Parts: sequence; structure tokens; C-alpha cells
Amino acid sequence: MPFDPETLRFDANGLMPAIAQDAASGEVLMMAWMSADAIRRTLETGRVTYWSRSRATLWVKGESSGHVQELVEMRIDCDRDCLLVLVNQHGPACHTNRRSCFFTALRGGREVEIMAPEG
Amino acid sequence: MPFDPETLRFDANGLMPAIAQDAASGEVLMMAWMSADAIRRTLETGRVTYWSRSRATLWVKGESSGHVQELVEMRIDCDRDCLLVLVNQHGPACHTNRRSCFFTALRGGREVEIMAPEG
Repeated sequence: MPFDPETLRFDANGLMPAIAQDAASGEVLMMAWMSADAIRRTLETGRVTYWSRSRATLWVKGESSGHVQELVEMRIDCDRDCLLVLVNQHGPACHTNRRSCFFTALRGGREVEIMAPEG
Repeated sequence: MPFDPETLRFDANGLMPAIAQDAASGEVLMMAWMSADAIRRTLETGRVTYWSRSRATLWVKGESSGHVQELVEMRIDCDRDCLLVLVNQHGPACHTNRRSCFFTALRGGREVEIMAPEG
């Protein structure tokens, strides 16, 4: 049976978390939200597309910055309410120009920046 | 300034997504939800603790199964509304006895199981 995004379990807003992971390095790059439409567009175009909650619109990652994510593979978790997208990340994934959005670590009870902006 | 979980941005239910990643292999194991209390407990005990939305209670991962997650490092994303927890995973992370909850991949437009339950 071909995959149908409607068989997934979306939250009350029709969204689910999608974790982007660098397909080559395994680094976790970011987490954003996908609607059924965002999932369809991602699979059809091969360009990872999220739902922007702040702008309330589909958001082709990197559309303005050029920091696109080419889809390598989409995976679904056991509860069918979370996605893992393996990607080829062009440029930094974070809007702060860092490779990953997870650049703050808790070490010794304090927040430490572990990654500098690129370029 | 010591880290205070209350400075993070929780959703309307007082929760945020927490992604568990195997600290050694880089494999993304699961995604679950943390409250401020769950974050505090995780940091204090070194045992990754989530908020179970179905049971509406704190949930020390592996408490009954023995498949605990030792915290290696907690990271915060740029928007302060998502966590990445690097863990030493004891046994399988998924309740289906698979290493990761993300054992279903989309390949050729179909769902394919890419990981078997462990012995």
C-alpha cells in the first residue's frame, strides 16, 4: 500500500515534530514541524519542507538563505507521531549560521556555547 | 548564572520535545516530552526522565524495563523550545524492543521496516 501521510498521528494543530539529521555525519541539526502537506511536498520535491508556526505557512527550508536540505530518507517512529528526516544539509542549518540549532550545552550546571557561527 | 529550566520555552501544556541520541553511535533513538520537572530530575539524577502524556506522570525511562538512558549531555536549541539529550542507552530504546523508535523508513513510496526487535 503506498504511503499516505493521513495515516500518521498529528497533534491538535495538524502538526508533528520532524527531526533533521545530517545523513553523512549523524549530527542532529534541528527540529521543526510538519503538516501532512509539508510531508507530501518533502517527499514529492526532495526538498525538506516544514510548517512555519510563526508565519503559518509552508516553509521550504533554505528557500531564502540557500541553506536547503535535500531529503535522503524519511523515517517514522513507532507511535507514528514523530518523523526523522535524514538530509544533505547545504550550509548551516541554524538561522544563527551555526551548523546545528543545538549549539548550547549544559556543562557544570551552566549553559555553554559549543559551536560558533560559520564563515 | 546557573541553568534554570524555567527560562526555556514550554508549550501550552508545559512541555517540550526532547530528542534522545546515542552518544556513542549518533543514532537518533526516540523523541519524547519533558516538563521543567522532568528536566530537573534528568539533570539531578543523570537518568533521563520524561513526562508521559498518556499516563500524565513523570517517567524515568527504563524504570520498569531496565532500558535506562544515562545522561551524557543535555543541549538546548536556538529557540529554547527543544532539547537534545545525548545518552548511553542500555538495551533497546523502543518499547517494541528495537534499538530505535525510528524503524520504519519510506522507500519507493512505501513503508519499510529497517530494524528488527532485539533478541
